[in-house]
Amino acid sequence: MYRTHTCGELRAEHVGKEVTLSGWVQRRRDLGGMSFIDLRDRYGITQLAFNDGVDATLLEKARKVNREFVIQATGKVIARESVNKQNPTGDVEVVVTDLKVLNAAKTPPFTIENETDGGEELRMKYRYLDIRRNPVRDNLMLRHRVSMAVRKYLSDAGFIDVETPYLIKSTPEGARDFVVPSRMNPNEFYALPQSPQTFKQLLMVAGMDRYYQIVRCFRDEDLRADRQPEFTQIDCEMAFVEQEDIISMFEGLIKSLLKEVRGVEIDEVPRMSWHEAMERYGNDKPDIRFGMELIKMNDLVQGKGFKVFDDSELVVGIKVDGAADWTRKQLDALTKWVQRPQIGMGGVIWAKYGEDGSRSSSVNKFFDEAAQAEWAEAFGAQPGDLMLILAGAETKTRKAMSELRLYMGEELGLRNPDVFAPLWVTDFPLLEWDEDTERYYAMHHPFTSPKPEDMDKIDTAPGEVRANAYDMVLNGNEIGGGSIRIHDRDLQKRMFTLLGFSDEEAQEQFGFLMNAFEYGAPPHGGIAFGFDRLCALIGGDEVIRDYIAFPKNNAGRDVMIDAPAAISGEQLDELYLGLKPLD
Amino acid sequence: MYRTHTCGELRAEHVGKEVTLSGWVQRRRDLGGMSFIDLRDRYGITQLAFNDGVDATLLEKARKVNREFVIQATGKVIARESVNKQNPTGDVEVVVTDLKVLNAAKTPPFTIENETDGGEELRMKYRYLDIRRNPVRDNLMLRHRVSMAVRKYLSDAGFIDVETPYLIKSTPEGARDFVVPSRMNPNEFYALPQSPQTFKQLLMVAGMDRYYQIVRCFRDEDLRADRQPEFTQIDCEMAFVEQEDIISMFEGLIKSLLKEVRGVEIDEVPRMSWHEAMERYGNDKPDIRFGMELIKMNDLVQGKGFKVFDDSELVVGIKVDGAADWTRKQLDALTKWVQRPQIGMGGVIWAKYGEDGSRSSSVNKFFDEAAQAEWAEAFGAQPGDLMLILAGAETKTRKAMSELRLYMGEELGLRNPDVFAPLWVTDFPLLEWDEDTERYYAMHHPFTSPKPEDMDKIDTAPGEVRANAYDMVLNGNEIGGGSIRIHDRDLQKRMFTLLGFSDEEAQEQFGFLMNAFEYGAPPHGGIAFGFDRLCALIGGDEVIRDYIAFPKNNAGRDVMIDAPAAISGEQLDELYLGLKPLD
Repeated sequence: MYRTHTCGELRAEHVGKEVTLSGWVQRRRDLGGMSFIDLRDRYGITQLAFNDGVDATLLEKARKVNREFVIQATGKVIARESVNKQNPTGDVEVVVTDLKVLNAAKTPPFTIENETDGGEELRMKYRYLDIRRNPVRDNLMLRHRVSMAVRKYLSDAGFIDVETPYLIKSTPEGARDFVVPSRMNPNEFYALPQSPQTFKQLLMVAGMDRYYQIVRCFRDEDLRADRQPEFTQIDCEMAFVEQEDIISMFEGLIKSLLKEVRGVEIDEVPRMSWHEAMERYGNDKPDIRFGMELIKMNDLVQGKGFKVFDDSELVVGIKVDGAADWTRKQLDALTKWVQRPQIGMGGVIWAKYGEDGSRSSSVNKFFDEAAQAEWAEAFGAQPGDLMLILAGAETKTRKAMSELRLYMGEELGLRNPDVFAPLWVTDFPLLEWDEDTERYYAMHHPFTSPKPEDMDKIDTAPGEVRANAYDMVLNGNEIGGGSIRIHDRDLQKRMFTLLGFSDEEAQEQFGFLMNAFEYGAPPHGGIAFGFDRLCALIGGDEVIRDYIAFPKNNAGRDVMIDAPAAISGEQLDELYLGLKPLD
Repeated sequence: MYRTHTCGELRAEHVGKEVTLSGWVQRRRDLGGMSFIDLRDRYGITQLAFNDGVDATLLEKARKVNREFVIQATGKVIARESVNKQNPTGDVEVVVTDLKVLNAAKTPPFTIENETDGGEELRMKYRYLDIRRNPVRDNLMLRHRVSMAVRKYLSDAGFIDVETPYLIKSTPEGARDFVVPSRMNPNEFYALPQSPQTFKQLLMVAGMDRYYQIVRCFRDEDLRADRQPEFTQIDCEMAFVEQEDIISMFEGLIKSLLKEVRGVEIDEVPRMSWHEAMERYGNDKPDIRFGMELIKMNDLVQGKGFKVFDDSELVVGIKVDGAADWTRKQLDALTKWVQRPQIGMGGVIWAKYGEDGSRSSSVNKFFDEAAQAEWAEAFGAQPGDLMLILAGAETKTRKAMSELRLYMGEELGLRNPDVFAPLWVTDFPLLEWDEDTERYYAMHHPFTSPKPEDMDKIDTAPGEVRANAYDMVLNGNEIGGGSIRIHDRDLQKRMFTLLGFSDEEAQEQFGFLMNAFEYGAPPHGGIAFGFDRLCALIGGDEVIRDYIAFPKNNAGRDVMIDAPAAISGEQLDELYLGLKPLD
């Protein structure tokens, strides 16, 4: 037996006991004829003492032990003279009588401490060392706890965990599939699922009633920062439900997770239509931890002779509470910030309503104090507030203002990661027009049902049709999205036509689903949550990579195992595949 | 709202209530001016009644409703005149006042009944209808329950569910990998994991201490009956453990599952060395629900002038209790059975010890009554017993006798699927010699540690070295296997050499693991259970396909979605891949 206790277990009550511990050497301190080792495992750190008449051979042995050695130590638990209140085991130490080196260790390439000196790439290459650090280990353990809490909530609510296949069929819609050649079926390919969407719908046709799965999904897309080629989803579907049933079920889930894992109580989750979210926040995933809502100013400022405003499709502002004392330098920096290519605006117009009631703005020339007083009224500004204004083409300007709002929220410390503000965004548009390809795309996916009351517009004004679709947003991040599905074959077929599928294509790609709809498909709907991000947010972080045990880098590579990699000619031959030279 | 109750919920206490149910029409019966519909969902069946002065329009509507239509019915719960004791809802029926057809259904291609008229291929094509049948749905729900019970047991024992990547690196050892080309990294490939073996070991190096995952694994191998290209494993690993710790932990798991899911209490699980299992049962996964152990007869029968025995490496028999009355026809059929190519023996020799004390055998010519009496004594046979004997080359004959034993067990009804007899098989050989390639292969995998006490034979007689490896066997099926791993870099390197890897190959394929061993790897070991088979066995079945929601057929195809399939030229171009013509 390698241990009688873990390194996080010993307390004052164990004093006098003979124990054996195993773990990693966090550090060793030598003091005259004594040595102390902090021994670490997943559960904690315990101090090993080699002191007061320790046998010379044993002391010598102890002094050969370095950081990250794996050792086993036997000895007696004693009360510590100087109690360490920071450490749960800090009341005691183990006076070692026997020491065994289970495995030596080279000096790790970075320090195994909460704050490490290792850079991202190095930590990823030695991820097995990185995980030894408390913050990373804690993230993985939080993920485990979230997953168990999800399973408990859903299982208690009658959801059945059904495993759907990973080797499925490639579909052309949406993001790119990873494909998998098959030795058994040469020249044919499976695809890895981007989500188990059609399978979960088939499970509803199959009468499973309530399905869930914590499931891996795959996308062979160019990776933006913090996006992974494989990611995990909490995938759910329910039969005989309307939107309200789903919202209430999964509002319960998020409340239960925050309560269970973070001890945070959430009131009823507010709701907002997509349209309202775009108007008020310029964004379909608003961070509602703070206000600073968008104020449309067109009526207020246009036709007053200021060309920048007059020529703009949209003039929009936000009020920043108590920021009237921002310096010219700070405000100039904001202009630089919005001029960056990813924002692409000409500049920021500002107006200060001073603590002393004074008014000034960067457009004093065009708008006198009276005009600025009107603005302040429209914004609900109080003395001491700052107003920031952007003007330009509608979509771009709204997006820019949304970004600026988030930036200001960050600057002012209004985005506390330990405050949780979930929100339902509903009534999404069914379709999105793409200028490049000149066709409509499904905003969620082609299985989303249109709102019955908007059906009359489906041929005349498809862009105005709203969907029975909803997102759950948490602190400015979309953490889940879903919809009530189409369960009628004819409507589904019509939808594929609207999305530019020929009848043959629709039949070839989704025939099995449309056929299934002919054999008694119940009304159904569901939702999927991005599990990686959900865990990160619950952990008070935004970087999903820190919540994945073995993540890939921005080029989709696993730098630890060095994948992907070339495969052998034999393997290619068996698959009847040849490589084409790169351009 | 689509329903106030499920179809399995109404009881006598609901009488008088107005309810709304939704579900599928199991059947409709028309009796004069009345109609009855059995409405089905996942939870049960409730009788809907259209009777006693039912409105003519409603009756007409009801009579348009056919099998598998999805309907919604509102009405009042009343006590039934003729109670149906078979059905939990059989005390009541719902007198319908409002009926809505939610979706019509074509006549299904096979009957949605416990016993269906649909063949395997048809049921797989319409798997979403097959799952509506009680036995299939029950299997999937059992799987869900097993999975929750596994998670609870392991989570309570401190195991952390860590998700390991599915896009990893191809390794040449063992079965064939599925590979995944990458658009981001053209001409390179990921591989899908055959198991997360190296990752779980790295998690031990990372200090996670106890890891588990219910995880999909992939193998691009020719499919034998009841083998799937993707399958699910309960994958576990522990640090600072010896074999005994693992055995005790996972013996607890199997006991807990059988108790939780089947209500069966299991005593201590017996153990047997690999060698003993081979001797006593001819098999390393013996079914110990019945005896009929193998008796080696060489000493007893050789040198008596019967050439068949004299020329055989092995003469081995079993005693079949109370089967002395088997007819000549039955015994001839046994000979035919062992002559099939997959067994390949010349025939069965039998000897009867009659109820009346008489003795006779198929080799009376060579062995008189006295000789046969000796046999009976060696077998421990009683009057009324039958002895069956095979002779030939050792390995083949032992295997054949093991098969014959299982066949006789089946014939005699000794293999009751509701009896559970788990067994640990331990002390496996470390290596297996392959005649074709003239090299050793790892019997478990290259990370399995040799027994320290056998290390002296590793160079001189590697075939005799035993491993710290163990299998859990249930009713003649290997349900789990594992080992204590090597955690020493040098030993691991030596093992790769023994397995014919060059240093470069070992470094290229497993360098990351061997490097990890240099930074403080703890002693560790683990086990993995085949989850599909485990569920089938707990369900009292052996066919894993019935416990997988969407299985593939013997050619690795999903006949429902028709995968794998050709992909487009654009997809191939983006991957820099070309197809080679089939031979």
